[in-house]
Amino acid sequence: MIKEYIKENQDRILEELFSLIRIPSVSAQPDKHGADMVRCAERWKELLLMAGVDRAEVMPTDGNPVVYGEKIVDPAARTVLIYGHYDVMPAEPFELWKTEPFEPVIKDGRLWARGADDDKGQSFIQAKAFEYIVKNNLLKHNIKFILEGEEEIGSPSLEAFCKKHKELLKCDVILVSDTSMIAKDIPSLTVGLRGLAYWQIEVTGPNHDLHSGHFGGAVANPINVLCKLITDVTDKDGKIQFPGFYDDVEEVSPEERAMVAQIPFDEAAYKNSLDVDELFGEKGYSTIEHTGFRPSFDVCGIWGGYQGEGAKTVIPSKAYAKLSCRLVPHQDHAKIGQMVVDYFQRVAPKTVKVKVESMHGGQGYVCPIDLPAYKAAERGFEKAFGKRPIAARRGGSIPIIATFEEVLGVKTVLMGFGLESNLIHSPNENIQLDMYWKSIEAVINFHLEYDKL
Amino acid sequence: MIKEYIKENQDRILEELFSLIRIPSVSAQPDKHGADMVRCAERWKELLLMAGVDRAEVMPTDGNPVVYGEKIVDPAARTVLIYGHYDVMPAEPFELWKTEPFEPVIKDGRLWARGADDDKGQSFIQAKAFEYIVKNNLLKHNIKFILEGEEEIGSPSLEAFCKKHKELLKCDVILVSDTSMIAKDIPSLTVGLRGLAYWQIEVTGPNHDLHSGHFGGAVANPINVLCKLITDVTDKDGKIQFPGFYDDVEEVSPEERAMVAQIPFDEAAYKNSLDVDELFGEKGYSTIEHTGFRPSFDVCGIWGGYQGEGAKTVIPSKAYAKLSCRLVPHQDHAKIGQMVVDYFQRVAPKTVKVKVESMHGGQGYVCPIDLPAYKAAERGFEKAFGKRPIAARRGGSIPIIATFEEVLGVKTVLMGFGLESNLIHSPNENIQLDMYWKSIEAVINFHLEYDKL
Repeated sequence: MIKEYIKENQDRILEELFSLIRIPSVSAQPDKHGADMVRCAERWKELLLMAGVDRAEVMPTDGNPVVYGEKIVDPAARTVLIYGHYDVMPAEPFELWKTEPFEPVIKDGRLWARGADDDKGQSFIQAKAFEYIVKNNLLKHNIKFILEGEEEIGSPSLEAFCKKHKELLKCDVILVSDTSMIAKDIPSLTVGLRGLAYWQIEVTGPNHDLHSGHFGGAVANPINVLCKLITDVTDKDGKIQFPGFYDDVEEVSPEERAMVAQIPFDEAAYKNSLDVDELFGEKGYSTIEHTGFRPSFDVCGIWGGYQGEGAKTVIPSKAYAKLSCRLVPHQDHAKIGQMVVDYFQRVAPKTVKVKVESMHGGQGYVCPIDLPAYKAAERGFEKAFGKRPIAARRGGSIPIIATFEEVLGVKTVLMGFGLESNLIHSPNENIQLDMYWKSIEAVINFHLEYDKL
Repeated sequence: MIKEYIKENQDRILEELFSLIRIPSVSAQPDKHGADMVRCAERWKELLLMAGVDRAEVMPTDGNPVVYGEKIVDPAARTVLIYGHYDVMPAEPFELWKTEPFEPVIKDGRLWARGADDDKGQSFIQAKAFEYIVKNNLLKHNIKFILEGEEEIGSPSLEAFCKKHKELLKCDVILVSDTSMIAKDIPSLTVGLRGLAYWQIEVTGPNHDLHSGHFGGAVANPINVLCKLITDVTDKDGKIQFPGFYDDVEEVSPEERAMVAQIPFDEAAYKNSLDVDELFGEKGYSTIEHTGFRPSFDVCGIWGGYQGEGAKTVIPSKAYAKLSCRLVPHQDHAKIGQMVVDYFQRVAPKTVKVKVESMHGGQGYVCPIDLPAYKAAERGFEKAFGKRPIAARRGGSIPIIATFEEVLGVKTVLMGFGLESNLIHSPNENIQLDMYWKSIEAVINFHLEYDKL
């Protein structure tokens, strides 16, 4: 019956999802896409009403608006709050897309577009599972929706929104589809998330670009200096060198490490899919451990000097980089944020001026696997995918999850359906349609099972 | 009489120079400016004819055309070949210009525009000094002009052109205005030039941009790797670490070093003009030595990953940099070019793929100070500036000077009038007009004095 419903409605479901994708709601580019954020929120409101909520509202925050919707069947019943985000990552570099990023295309059994997975596609799974439950009069608990427009820039306004609207958001558990499974044939539920800290660094050398012949060898080049500052952050064993960086890192128990070692992982296939000959990570840990519960340091962007055609001989005045750390439970992003700002100020040579700005950040999170909602999610997965899902810590960050726990006092179950091949945050983001229909089925079963527990 | 002539004609001279500057002849951007190169060459031909050459021609090469002109007063007399270039550096970053780069503006006693100095402004000094000598019937030696359109990209076509047109270019000495003086009140003649080697490096990590949460800590980030490759090139004492790099470096004699130590140099003013608190250079050498006769390594540009507004959490697939070395006499740019390509291939970690392309290069040059033309230049400077110029090695490169010596068998006298404050290769390039008129006077006197020697 669930399968038939999905089959009969799949064209309409896709058209509705397309209407969200076509709005380029890139939160990192407010100058360009400020108006798109509001349009996308308004569209979500319409779609929630169409799916069956009693009421829906676009609510203001200090930043992009939040979409709220609810279906209250019984004030005394339990409530599931469904969280998602309608903002997407920038689509740059555009030239690497095989299709237009904001014009959805169905090809090879996949839907291709920015947001096809993260998180328009995934959060819409929740909306359509809800629709089924409502239309078939199966809903026995209350459901609330909250969709924010700033997840990809670190949810700067949502904490204040949650504090202000604690009563409205009251719930027993939060359900989120914004994570991925280990593999298509290895369903998994994410029980740990890494935190995030992010900085922009600006290195200023001379006060104007210099002729590299007249000055080369006598004046520090800010690009060379920036490269050294970055290089010194990591040693040859992949250990991060900010003093105190590992102080609060949770050392995972031998039991959990033994369990992690059981997760099927094909290193050859992993390297092959990335086209790299060798992996690189912190010495003493496996690849799954590297991304699951060890912190990391990455340069997300770097620029300075001449980047055009041909050869320009110049010592630039400035060089920039965007730096990020994934953090693990107990590492506080604000503490690490300041630690890194202080570190660069301390180690910067006197030949240049260094400015470091701490941008957004978020805490890590761990979900207990004995939660009723976790068990409901487990059964939902099993019914749709035919396999009990593995409990896995994953490398991504959803900073707001830790904030929900702190402000609303509830745990979150991460029922995500992404795959590595979905290329989220990259050109050619996509989602497999056969997986998409199974995912809706899994969430429908979550709701049915949750009422039994 | 010279001063009056210049005064009476200065508005016309500037208008003529403006007509060259207004053509954006950026050789590094052929897609955008290919047609401008030809237009600029044609305009030079007209200006040479107006200045008094018997004939002028725009001549094809494998790249941008060469402008040739000549005034033969007596086939048995000596010949001075005047070399210059009509191409300019890219004007990027445009946003740092206070005026339009290709629309000359006179303000605060200076002419502001790309090419105001390098080399449209400077080479036009030669044309206008020639005009004076011709109009006043003072010319007793032959004068030839050759203006190329590829100097800023390493003169790739000029060597073949010189070989093909050896007879046409036959001369006793070459005169070039494309260098700078130590300071406005310290006239100097450049007697040494550094060579140049230039590379572009591409580091490829994973075959597509990755989510830094899902992969961070497990996969080598090509920006981090590129930064390390760059950092490892220089040690803490500023020594360049390519094995064999210093093998052919000319060790300058204690006598010359003693002479260099006499050159007035105000380090505080130098640092102040650049707004840097400390200089950085190879240990054991002074600042003038760093730029005059020691090789250097600079990153001229770097880019990779997200460079836009806000924070994008990504491990990019690729990172790039443009690298350059200034070389000193006896270092062969082709040998160094290959040495560096081999080096990076050898040291690149297996976690990434590294491609290094050797771009243009040029050899260093030394001019003997007992050359008659050198002495004529010395006297020309003295008459116009009231001071005997210092013989100085400078850090810049004019690769073709070494090629002239090799192919045409003649030495070059570098009678340049630039100043550090002219900001060549940078935004807000400019030239001081009072200096400009004195420079024309100096070159007129060069021709008059040359006939006496």
